[in-house]
Amino acid sequence: MKTITLAHGNGGQENNELISKIFYKAFENEILAKSEDAAIIQDGTLAFSTDSFTVSPIEFPGADIGKLAVCGTCNDLAMMGAKPKYLTCSVIIEEGFEVETLKRIVASMKKELEVNGAIVVSGDTKVVPRGSVDKIFINTTGIGQIQQKGISSNNIQEEDMILVSNSIGKHGATIFASREGIDFSTSLKSDCASLWPVVKKLIDSGIKIRALRDATRGGVSAVLNEWAKQSNICIEIEEEKIPVCDEVNGICELLGFEALSLANEGTFVMAISKDEVQKALKVLKEIDTSKEAQIIGKASTLHREKVVLNTAWGTQRFIDLPTGELLPRIC
Amino acid sequence: MKTITLAHGNGGQENNELISKIFYKAFENEILAKSEDAAIIQDGTLAFSTDSFTVSPIEFPGADIGKLAVCGTCNDLAMMGAKPKYLTCSVIIEEGFEVETLKRIVASMKKELEVNGAIVVSGDTKVVPRGSVDKIFINTTGIGQIQQKGISSNNIQEEDMILVSNSIGKHGATIFASREGIDFSTSLKSDCASLWPVVKKLIDSGIKIRALRDATRGGVSAVLNEWAKQSNICIEIEEEKIPVCDEVNGICELLGFEALSLANEGTFVMAISKDEVQKALKVLKEIDTSKEAQIIGKASTLHREKVVLNTAWGTQRFIDLPTGELLPRIC
Repeated sequence: MKTITLAHGNGGQENNELISKIFYKAFENEILAKSEDAAIIQDGTLAFSTDSFTVSPIEFPGADIGKLAVCGTCNDLAMMGAKPKYLTCSVIIEEGFEVETLKRIVASMKKELEVNGAIVVSGDTKVVPRGSVDKIFINTTGIGQIQQKGISSNNIQEEDMILVSNSIGKHGATIFASREGIDFSTSLKSDCASLWPVVKKLIDSGIKIRALRDATRGGVSAVLNEWAKQSNICIEIEEEKIPVCDEVNGICELLGFEALSLANEGTFVMAISKDEVQKALKVLKEIDTSKEAQIIGKASTLHREKVVLNTAWGTQRFIDLPTGELLPRIC
Repeated sequence: MKTITLAHGNGGQENNELISKIFYKAFENEILAKSEDAAIIQDGTLAFSTDSFTVSPIEFPGADIGKLAVCGTCNDLAMMGAKPKYLTCSVIIEEGFEVETLKRIVASMKKELEVNGAIVVSGDTKVVPRGSVDKIFINTTGIGQIQQKGISSNNIQEEDMILVSNSIGKHGATIFASREGIDFSTSLKSDCASLWPVVKKLIDSGIKIRALRDATRGGVSAVLNEWAKQSNICIEIEEEKIPVCDEVNGICELLGFEALSLANEGTFVMAISKDEVQKALKVLKEIDTSKEAQIIGKASTLHREKVVLNTAWGTQRFIDLPTGELLPRIC
């Protein structure tokens, strides 16, 4: 590894290597080692998470970089069972950026903060000369109050069920279509949404969640592969159960993508005991952002640390951690 | 205001306008309104602050972007009387960036985290295509545990004394000299340093601090102007008491800068009651990063909300909030 490549930011294998060999190695500590989407601090009472958003284009069907920046960080907190509470907002703006566009982005942020019941308490604004940044990058970092402890991808048990909360791949497909000027579908839009309301409803219904992760960069494939390793379990999924809309299927066929590896920004994967799965599915289907929720598979001991796809034709294949460039600047 | 200009990021007047008219207006809440270098959350027990670092060049005499990113955020916490505890680290890297340089930057971060007794608990890594960012930008966001409550720039009283902890303007002058290839001084280097150790010593010595602010973008001028407004007071400073080293003076004369408006990254301004000022000065002078500390003036009622400079020739002039482009990408 001599220079950083686009693959190092793919949310998949090369990304994990960069993080573990450079950042985790230098910053090593117990909290970081256990950190998933967010770190758990202050005796397990708070979750703490950061994300920088570099998406291109900055406005796209279903959202913009502002909505994405609030959803992204709030969702990372929600995935640890935490109610998003305080956010910081740090923007890096290119000289010449239009004030009207900035106002639209900030208005999107405000709206999405309200969905989460969170507030921005501190910020930073940098302006850099033309060419030093492409338009605008936004960092949000959030603190959430944990409402259900013990949600962790290290605890998945044999026979636990695996769900997705929504049809998959819409964010990745939308960004790709916007960027390439593909306009064969008017109804395709990013799934970008705040997930705290649905997580809150699961918790309030008394459901014990085993593991929860929003399937962003690297998609559902990346989440399931990490979970299989961390819980030393096999995850078997059924191809025909995986919800994928026609537009996403179309883009995948056209361009040779796999929906399982496309990014989502308002869709999570959940592991839950089989005793609770039907109750959870009922709760999910009552909420708009998760009404397409499906059980897609289960944890087993078939091939530990592997993700197995049972195809519609009765064959099996491994789903690996995504590699290569995928789509840069997806989030 | 139709487009964003470099002046909107100057740490001075235009920067304040952008922040108040767009960000504060949209995100309005009580904690944000009271937020200074950091927000105070969780019933006054924690400080929370964010900063994105875009400095160019990324390595310069005295520090690099990694050291700066840890000092910058930890100092913002320290300025609220908080011990830096948890940091997040989010990097945006340009495709093609050298891994060896990244390792040096991360090693600088690690070293400076140790000075603060802080740890990185969560992170994010984005890689963007060539030309989408200039080399590397780093966001750090920190949580600190408040050790002395009530430090605030709203509370400065008539007759309070004003100190600076170090000779001023070295960071700004160093970046300018590095960028322009000026090499007439081998001893000039950035003052970039972690300030928690000296703040801790002030607190441990039982000193009651009135207000504290590291004089970054916009320099000492920006800090004093904000304080004068927020406390509805006049701040009078004595030109001949302001510590400025020969190299900084040289660069200021050469280029027409004012040392009071140059950025610092390890130098703070403090307001303190006149009964405690000598004790505080003694503590400051015992520590390496503040051994050039000086009393530079006092709060009065001469011209409320204004900063007055008493010159060496016995004349007086107002020091205004900096305006214009200043130096972009200074931090």
